[in-house]
Amino acid sequence: MEHPENEDQYKGLKVNKGVADVPTVNPYLKRRIQRRQYTPAEFVEGILKGNITILSQAVTLVESAKYEHQQVAQEIIEKCLPYAGKSMRIGITGVPGAGKSTSIDVFGMHLIQQGKKLAVLAIDPSSERSKGSILGDKTRMEALSREKNAFIRPSPSAGSLGGVARKTRETIILCEAAGFDTVFVETVGVGQSETAVHSMVDFFLLIQLAGTGDELQGIKRGIMEMADGIIINKADGDNIEKANMAAAQFRNALHLFPPAESGWFPKVLTYSGYYNLGIKPIWDMVDEYMAFTKQNGYFEYKRNEQAKYWMYESINDTLRETFYHNPAVEKMLNFTEQQVLNNEISSFVAAKRMMDLFLDNISNQ
Amino acid sequence: MEHPENEDQYKGLKVNKGVADVPTVNPYLKRRIQRRQYTPAEFVEGILKGNITILSQAVTLVESAKYEHQQVAQEIIEKCLPYAGKSMRIGITGVPGAGKSTSIDVFGMHLIQQGKKLAVLAIDPSSERSKGSILGDKTRMEALSREKNAFIRPSPSAGSLGGVARKTRETIILCEAAGFDTVFVETVGVGQSETAVHSMVDFFLLIQLAGTGDELQGIKRGIMEMADGIIINKADGDNIEKANMAAAQFRNALHLFPPAESGWFPKVLTYSGYYNLGIKPIWDMVDEYMAFTKQNGYFEYKRNEQAKYWMYESINDTLRETFYHNPAVEKMLNFTEQQVLNNEISSFVAAKRMMDLFLDNISNQ
Repeated sequence: MEHPENEDQYKGLKVNKGVADVPTVNPYLKRRIQRRQYTPAEFVEGILKGNITILSQAVTLVESAKYEHQQVAQEIIEKCLPYAGKSMRIGITGVPGAGKSTSIDVFGMHLIQQGKKLAVLAIDPSSERSKGSILGDKTRMEALSREKNAFIRPSPSAGSLGGVARKTRETIILCEAAGFDTVFVETVGVGQSETAVHSMVDFFLLIQLAGTGDELQGIKRGIMEMADGIIINKADGDNIEKANMAAAQFRNALHLFPPAESGWFPKVLTYSGYYNLGIKPIWDMVDEYMAFTKQNGYFEYKRNEQAKYWMYESINDTLRETFYHNPAVEKMLNFTEQQVLNNEISSFVAAKRMMDLFLDNISNQ
Repeated sequence: MEHPENEDQYKGLKVNKGVADVPTVNPYLKRRIQRRQYTPAEFVEGILKGNITILSQAVTLVESAKYEHQQVAQEIIEKCLPYAGKSMRIGITGVPGAGKSTSIDVFGMHLIQQGKKLAVLAIDPSSERSKGSILGDKTRMEALSREKNAFIRPSPSAGSLGGVARKTRETIILCEAAGFDTVFVETVGVGQSETAVHSMVDFFLLIQLAGTGDELQGIKRGIMEMADGIIINKADGDNIEKANMAAAQFRNALHLFPPAESGWFPKVLTYSGYYNLGIKPIWDMVDEYMAFTKQNGYFEYKRNEQAKYWMYESINDTLRETFYHNPAVEKMLNFTEQQVLNNEISSFVAAKRMMDLFLDNISNQ
């Protein structure tokens, strides 16, 4: 029961009978939660002991859209924060078909054999549309999914990229508190999610395939600029020469970019996920990067910048939510929008009026 | 005096002696504005008569960061709105060196010879850093700058892309009310500004150069997907064959994109701005697009979507500004940021606390 994907899976869980029911005001919610729940302190105790079942349940609370669950989740996160931050956080991206799952399985086993504890998370905001995430699905990572030192969790499937990213970031905190010293955050190489992942990891790894001269197609330009390492998969058999050529192409392309803020020059390596070849040099590269950036202070600097970034992201999200759910705003928004569409008022005047309504409403409460 | 670039240029303007001074509370402001000012109604009257001097002054108010100027500007915009919206709005982008200025000069003259009135605006948020915009500078458009039916205005040089874009969008409204039936919005092809321009124009034109096999380099992937037309410059002399090859390459590349929402399939044409060759087909293409999208309803739909987009952009800008300038927020923001950096609270809890401070502060006013 490491990996509950929805609330129904809760039902079979054994819980401490001595713990009181979660107080709820919503009768619908009350009916659905037909079980006893841990207290926040019990959650934290379980997490700090490395109890995977409790960690899973806490992550489910983090991912929940329900207010009551969020209250508990935030209490757990706050208590876990002092124990967090000590892992190596690695973002892994690549276009579909590049072999991400096989690679993560092989990389993970390599790290676990070195005595590491690995959490594999994912960000895939499209997972809501496709009803269930394809990323981080443990069935795609055969070896890892049998390892007790691996925790695999699919992408939270709720809504906006911002929301999904926040949940993943908070899950990192819980995993770190539970003793995971390495965290992978996987994403598909299709756009905005890379920026979100980049803003929560220490090292950003881009998986590429040796193709047929089109190596630079298929990835967004910005993603290559984010990469701290580019690794070319399927460098095996007849494909080795092609992979080496692709590596040379990428090295040339990287020279066109301005130097990275970290002072690190991104490396390009070839490997084979399927045949388990060239894996060690990849993790030597990651270790080298960590040592390098810890020594020059960039590691600490980046972590701080990321924390600030997420704080302001959260503020702006909360701000928009408070505004658009304000009753005075909700009441007038459509009408004002219609006035703008009819060219009766400018968008700026519309914004000012909505803002005045909002401020009036709050100050009269 | 079509084109005052800063307030000093105001000084020489003749104004109606009968008009009272602008009431101001700021003594510094009072000292600087040593001149009589039109009333909003006089501004609107002048604009509707097509008075370029008055239009220029109104645009300067739109671009001003001063509260008093913004008040007047918004009143003018609101009164002009019923007369706006009737122009053909065209976004023009291309990497530096693609020949944007020469092309705009030639395109503009072509349109003016057809009896059109043309406003050339620009968006270049970098212009603040470089102290003065390089875009929309009339000295770069020799023929156009001598035409009474052309109004050339450089990029507003104030601050964020959002702010610059809003000002340009409001300037479009004033230009349309002044009778300009064609509006160019120029931008450098370097990133975010294209999205802003795309969200305020009807047709998005991408200027490219026939290069040396690297045609697809240099432009951001997303920009090509926005283009309704791609035009290859310098198709003259020895370069004609190269330009045709580049056009073929772009046509192939466009086939890789999903079909556009408009139902329009982007065209690729070659021309020479310098030798004034192939200009008419470009504007036939634009006319064809306008007729096509007006017929299938996309033109109207897109204008409405754009108006909504700008309304929500304005709301979110205003919201952030109100929040971050709130005294209670300003007082605690650094401390809270430090708590997040020290891992004492999560970014989400920080956001919630700041939000509570903000709401408390407003409701106690």
